[in-house]
Amino acid sequence: MCRPLTTAINLLLLGLALGACSGNEAPPPKVILIIGDGMDDQQITMARNYLVGSKGRLVMDSMPYRGALQVQTVDENDPGIAVYVGDSASGATALATGVVTSIGRVATAAGTDENLRTILEMAHDAGFGTGIVTTTRIADATPASFIAHIDDRYCQSPSSMVEEDKTHPQYSTNCADDYTANGGRGSVAEQIVQSGIDVILGSGREDFAEPLDHKRTDADAPTVEGLARDNGFTMIQSSDELDGAEQYDRIIGLFSEGIMPVRLRGENNAVAEFISRRDGRVEWPAPVTCEDNPAFENMPTLAEMTTAALLRLDREDGFALIIESASIDDQAHYWLACGHIGEVGQLDETLEVALDYADAHPETLVIVTADHGHAAQIVPQISEFEPQDYASPGRFIRIRTPEGGIMGINYATNDSPDWEEHSGVQVPIYAYGPGVESLPTFMPQRNVFDLMAGHLGLVDTGAP
Amino acid sequence: MCRPLTTAINLLLLGLALGACSGNEAPPPKVILIIGDGMDDQQITMARNYLVGSKGRLVMDSMPYRGALQVQTVDENDPGIAVYVGDSASGATALATGVVTSIGRVATAAGTDENLRTILEMAHDAGFGTGIVTTTRIADATPASFIAHIDDRYCQSPSSMVEEDKTHPQYSTNCADDYTANGGRGSVAEQIVQSGIDVILGSGREDFAEPLDHKRTDADAPTVEGLARDNGFTMIQSSDELDGAEQYDRIIGLFSEGIMPVRLRGENNAVAEFISRRDGRVEWPAPVTCEDNPAFENMPTLAEMTTAALLRLDREDGFALIIESASIDDQAHYWLACGHIGEVGQLDETLEVALDYADAHPETLVIVTADHGHAAQIVPQISEFEPQDYASPGRFIRIRTPEGGIMGINYATNDSPDWEEHSGVQVPIYAYGPGVESLPTFMPQRNVFDLMAGHLGLVDTGAP
Repeated sequence: MCRPLTTAINLLLLGLALGACSGNEAPPPKVILIIGDGMDDQQITMARNYLVGSKGRLVMDSMPYRGALQVQTVDENDPGIAVYVGDSASGATALATGVVTSIGRVATAAGTDENLRTILEMAHDAGFGTGIVTTTRIADATPASFIAHIDDRYCQSPSSMVEEDKTHPQYSTNCADDYTANGGRGSVAEQIVQSGIDVILGSGREDFAEPLDHKRTDADAPTVEGLARDNGFTMIQSSDELDGAEQYDRIIGLFSEGIMPVRLRGENNAVAEFISRRDGRVEWPAPVTCEDNPAFENMPTLAEMTTAALLRLDREDGFALIIESASIDDQAHYWLACGHIGEVGQLDETLEVALDYADAHPETLVIVTADHGHAAQIVPQISEFEPQDYASPGRFIRIRTPEGGIMGINYATNDSPDWEEHSGVQVPIYAYGPGVESLPTFMPQRNVFDLMAGHLGLVDTGAP
Repeated sequence: MCRPLTTAINLLLLGLALGACSGNEAPPPKVILIIGDGMDDQQITMARNYLVGSKGRLVMDSMPYRGALQVQTVDENDPGIAVYVGDSASGATALATGVVTSIGRVATAAGTDENLRTILEMAHDAGFGTGIVTTTRIADATPASFIAHIDDRYCQSPSSMVEEDKTHPQYSTNCADDYTANGGRGSVAEQIVQSGIDVILGSGREDFAEPLDHKRTDADAPTVEGLARDNGFTMIQSSDELDGAEQYDRIIGLFSEGIMPVRLRGENNAVAEFISRRDGRVEWPAPVTCEDNPAFENMPTLAEMTTAALLRLDREDGFALIIESASIDDQAHYWLACGHIGEVGQLDETLEVALDYADAHPETLVIVTADHGHAAQIVPQISEFEPQDYASPGRFIRIRTPEGGIMGINYATNDSPDWEEHSGVQVPIYAYGPGVESLPTFMPQRNVFDLMAGHLGLVDTGAP
């Protein structure tokens, strides 16, 4: 089972690896779940074509198990009715709790608003270490669904609980029952800092800087961050502070104010755009390359955050670690092809870290999957039929790949100026570790919870 | 390995099955390759949601192996350059020959026009039985790529060789070197009837009724069909004639004039259409159901044709059988959601027949895959964001599913009034039979040829 430690960053783990590979005792089980937010087969193919070439192999292409996962969502008003396109909240809730819920809900049940116990809560109560690593705000829907319970994913911070501007009509628009003043647990950020999680690495400093009472503007007003410190969390905020972070008992790392900058961007910030025509003829846009995003320079990579989390959690008697490459989704919503290609790349190099850890600790189950599919499609880079007359009715970009090809990508789920929508396609699931040879090649999304709980030997014993 | 024989149609195979399951000798290897033309993960998810419900399981969902297949195509003028979206000709050529070629080419090499030896030609020469079953014209690109060699997929019949109207600029527009008058092998149809294939079942009678010399209009003019008879083929054309067809040495079944009618259609022939607006507001179309297509009534199903082919090929010392559910692609090109859902269903019930055969004959390798991805996407059935203002910029339909949901499907690869384009997404590959537990979960498309050739123990020994 011991694969060679190929990534430089994993030299950090070498000591542990050598010990674990040669030991004879049965070590406690570990689970690493890696979520690509919006990472469907289109996203993976685009990333392969660009990052390693169409004849190349991503790390995930080497996984011993791969299946298809049916995304699962139901109607809020009639939870017996299937909905075929989900969001990050409903998808992550199915993964985290094993219960299928409605769009916008964070670990709460459709219709009843009942809190749903998550895999991290169960693991913590059973004495395992727990962690979350993400490239977005840690109060955002995907990480939130593993730690918090709220009926509206946008109730992320104290101030968001009282905003009047609820522009998403299909979401539960009200989280008044969760106000602390009403005896609730407060916003997602407040719930996070009161959770039992050991390691939380991601972004969204602005959510945690807010006063707990949104009406107070004085400098002494208690903040979410203060509450975190009261609960024993060490707060860090730069890449440098990740080194040695495993010494802390509990860590929250917030590496940017809002969502973290992504690794790649289009040349001259190129974005997919609606095709223009001159004299009725299609003007095909010039192909663009991808380039490093300068704003990413001081950010820790997802792989670096994962290494830090593994170093910390390795001290525990087994653990459950959730990792999210979040901005595949965000960049696809905003027609940023290079952006989502780079974030699939971040996930892929993080998987290498997880596999190296699993090789050194064969009691580790590694799962890679997605919460939902997304809008981006690989289409002909010039229409095959009457290319002077017809082109994508959606937004379109041509990416020049390092191997010398040109990849056409379109986004055409809606004609909104704001953002694209998700797709309801089944998404990939990969696994590595004990028992993966007997996994079925198709499963509903909620079964990922069963896989993780089964591997950790968890039995649900209480209410969240 | 012996699964219960669940489909009524397979009672036909029972005698053979019982014999094979209890025998002790090592029987010669068999390969069944099932191609869903354009069957990507979107298509499979749509079919599952409609046909068995989002909590249900298709037959393919039970396969012990599933991976992802990178579709492969190259530039005609510079075959070193990858092209990211292929067609049925290039995709099927990669599957059939193990060589990656350019769009529109049928078992010929990009740039050089060299003929490429196919798995069926190799299998025939090695003494195996060979067959092709499809729901479209047997001279169409996918089946053609396993039997014929021509630089333009549209050179399907004698008259098509001389048509001036070559409207597909990216295809090789010229097959003059293949004219029989120029010493060539003639059109695809002519090549098929001169091939060594034992069983060919599909459609396209009009291609075979044509005179070999397109200038002759007299009743005595020799036809492609006549040439088939001269070469020992028995010609059949109705479902009834399939019963007992295994008695013939060589069979060509042509069950309709052109492409075969498909199983399902939209209520009132509903087609996905561009969204209309009234006073600037989106008018969401009413959901439709799918219904049986009356034109399909007298057609043999793909499963019935497959059963007939298996009965015939079971007489041989091993065989290679290629099966295509062709109109997933065709129906998606023309925005016919119910149509492609039904044709994925046809593939799925055909897979059941193949698996039953494989259980009775464990020396059988069954592979299911696709030639390329397609346009259709599952999108929200009503936009999640400002649904009064924004909707798909492409064609859109809402399908009411038997389980009570509403599934939104859009097609938005181009704005042509003629047809949608393909997608370059990686496609599913499933397998069942000897050795599938050790298959990699990712492979390039051409490796399917290697799998089949390896299972049959074939070594290429000559030019096609």
